[in-house]
Amino acid sequence: MAAQPRWFQALTKALSLPENKGKTIYQLATVDSHNIPHVRSVGHRDFLIPKTYPAVPVLLATTDVRAAKVTQSLSNSVAELAWWLEGSQDQFRIAGKVTIIPAPSHPFHTMNAIPKGSAIHFLDEGGDKDHPGKYDWEKKRREVYDSMSPYLKASWTRPPPGSAINSYDDAKAWPQKLPKLGEAESEEDKRNAEIAFGNFALVLIEPHEIDWIQLGIFPHQRTRFTRLTNEGNGDEWKEEIQVP
Amino acid sequence: MAAQPRWFQALTKALSLPENKGKTIYQLATVDSHNIPHVRSVGHRDFLIPKTYPAVPVLLATTDVRAAKVTQSLSNSVAELAWWLEGSQDQFRIAGKVTIIPAPSHPFHTMNAIPKGSAIHFLDEGGDKDHPGKYDWEKKRREVYDSMSPYLKASWTRPPPGSAINSYDDAKAWPQKLPKLGEAESEEDKRNAEIAFGNFALVLIEPHEIDWIQLGIFPHQRTRFTRLTNEGNGDEWKEEIQVP
Repeated sequence: MAAQPRWFQALTKALSLPENKGKTIYQLATVDSHNIPHVRSVGHRDFLIPKTYPAVPVLLATTDVRAAKVTQSLSNSVAELAWWLEGSQDQFRIAGKVTIIPAPSHPFHTMNAIPKGSAIHFLDEGGDKDHPGKYDWEKKRREVYDSMSPYLKASWTRPPPGSAINSYDDAKAWPQKLPKLGEAESEEDKRNAEIAFGNFALVLIEPHEIDWIQLGIFPHQRTRFTRLTNEGNGDEWKEEIQVP
Repeated sequence: MAAQPRWFQALTKALSLPENKGKTIYQLATVDSHNIPHVRSVGHRDFLIPKTYPAVPVLLATTDVRAAKVTQSLSNSVAELAWWLEGSQDQFRIAGKVTIIPAPSHPFHTMNAIPKGSAIHFLDEGGDKDHPGKYDWEKKRREVYDSMSPYLKASWTRPPPGSAINSYDDAKAWPQKLPKLGEAESEEDKRNAEIAFGNFALVLIEPHEIDWIQLGIFPHQRTRFTRLTNEGNGDEWKEEIQVP
């Protein structure tokens, strides 16, 4: 079985340095259907490491399913993120394919659209390359939702992000906090929890190219890792030293 | 004459806060000719404010003219940057048109390609909307180059960024520092200065849409500013309050 790739070891090591503490925000770029680029800050939530496919760690983020990045990544699933670790002066640029996991009842629930061979199929303990297991995405979505702050939970009850309102004060009428699922007591909280959890979606990014620049050492170093996509080689990475 | 737009006042105010000190890095997203998004960290160098067009401040960055972002922005000049000001929890997403200003002898020297009506034409003190002046870009390019660190100056003598090398040690054979133009003493430094300055280019970003999210206040606030492009309205901005 392939080990975790070197870029991932470098990234997790950099993230563990005291000088990079709290650097869990990266900038995710997508293109819209008119081929216009868009980029926004996104919070890193976790790495998901397929049990039978550890060579392709998947990045986990979260979103409101009504956000523009969702429709953008449905129309063009290739995205790139830049993770600038200011403390150690490392930059990881990660290109990958985005998969959105919304509520099962949502029209964007396109689990079947995950391509054959994608590492995402192998997150289940029971699966292997030839017989992918059935990962319980709804359980995962619930677990991640529950781990979000009460303020973030409430944010998914708002009108669609980016829609116009008359005044900043309109926001004061929206719910400000929501408890975990199952901990809502009032009827209002229960109703709002249903709305919020319905709008909450997971964002999975399956990397295929990583550009690591180390500006904290002199001379600077740059290394590019490219996932080999030939049949049977999907868990191997080509490594190239490059001019920074 | 129109004043500086409110988004620019907000951005410069946020940048002046002690908690945002040193936050001069943003992430710039472009698309390549295959409509694949790319994003990387870029250092903010300055704002250029057209004397007769103060409503459209232009962002100034720098690059190696051989970098991929240059060919990407020549094939599709619309870019977006995300400027995350962690201290105050403000995010400015700025969409704009990119213009590259390389050495006059460089094939990408396409000053004439700046569209009629672009704010960039009005940086010259003598220009006005109907009679743009002649901004001395070569003087500006030289001035910005001279303000870069000796290490950065030397970086533009390297082989093309992103090209393969055999070993990290190859970098040790490259020049590590270069003085200002005109201050090179050895023949070698003079030769290298010519190469470096020849590869050095300015990056201008002329904004047309700004999405400002304030996550440091509760409830969060979001405001979108769109430049009006109707004839004669190019220096006015529409402001819309939005759901964060």
